[in-house]
Amino acid sequence: MKKVTVYITLKQGVLDPEGKAIGESLNALGYQEIVDARVGKFIELQVDEGPNLEERMNEMCDRLLANPIIEDYRFQVEEAVQS
Amino acid sequence: MKKVTVYITLKQGVLDPEGKAIGESLNALGYQEIVDARVGKFIELQVDEGPNLEERMNEMCDRLLANPIIEDYRFQVEEAVQS
Repeated sequence: MKKVTVYITLKQGVLDPEGKAIGESLNALGYQEIVDARVGKFIELQVDEGPNLEERMNEMCDRLLANPIIEDYRFQVEEAVQS
Repeated sequence: MKKVTVYITLKQGVLDPEGKAIGESLNALGYQEIVDARVGKFIELQVDEGPNLEERMNEMCDRLLANPIIEDYRFQVEEAVQS
């Protein structure tokens, strides 16, 4: 079993209203040191081992997980820790 | 300037309907190797250098960024790359 973590971010230049709201709220709470905030999401997948993992992961990202028009993604494959 | 990335996940045991929907959709698209999916978010902050960074970050997470009842957080501090 592998653990694949997919990180999805808005492309540079795409407006991030949630990040902006977070940055402004932190400033309003007195955390003046916060200059900028950008929000992304990550998806942790437990994946049965099989061939072409990287290729299939790229396909999954393009088809479902990310929106390639406005988002970038990267992923990282590790051995899954059995819990 | 520091870059702080805050990773926020639902606590173990808290239902994650978005993750479930992603897992089921991937299975339905033919990616049978996906056993489980959990979704989290991350926030990249550009932070002016100052004292007590770690302590203030913990405070920001508890007060605004995460919901400590149902979410866990961790963060990572790096030197900001000037772009």
